[in-house]
Amino acid sequence: MPLYMDIHKNVKGLTAEGVAEAHQKDLEAQKGHGVNYKQYWFNEKEGTVFCLSEAPSEEAAAAVHREAHGLMADEVVEVKEGK
Amino acid sequence: MPLYMDIHKNVKGLTAEGVAEAHQKDLEAQKGHGVNYKQYWFNEKEGTVFCLSEAPSEEAAAAVHREAHGLMADEVVEVKEGK
Repeated sequence: MPLYMDIHKNVKGLTAEGVAEAHQKDLEAQKGHGVNYKQYWFNEKEGTVFCLSEAPSEEAAAAVHREAHGLMADEVVEVKEGK
Repeated sequence: MPLYMDIHKNVKGLTAEGVAEAHQKDLEAQKGHGVNYKQYWFNEKEGTVFCLSEAPSEEAAAAVHREAHGLMADEVVEVKEGK
């Protein structure tokens, strides 16, 4: 299944707790979309979040964010993981 | 130790083999800098690479790339890993 890295930029008021809650909502919403949000990384000061997901398509990964919390990524890149 | 996600964009002629070789050079060069390049993800078509490293500073992580292959990141974000 394709792997996607998405990037959220300049998220206002981002906190570790807020992004953890949003990620939890992704994990709940993803079940209906065949998506697996695997890991995320964030910077509170800059308001940046990177989310790594396995998904059948970019649209499916985006649908999970839309349904879970409505915070859509600014960029999505289909990636392969380096060995 | 801080964690950094760096992004390389529009790398011309990027191949899985080429980025694997560059990563290997990072692993060799990092020893002198107290840096640990942990994982990377890439898109050959777009020429994008994301590198996740643990490093004492952003400058130390950049010094490894400079010494290893000279391919410097376009952006570097200090991140925390989500749980």
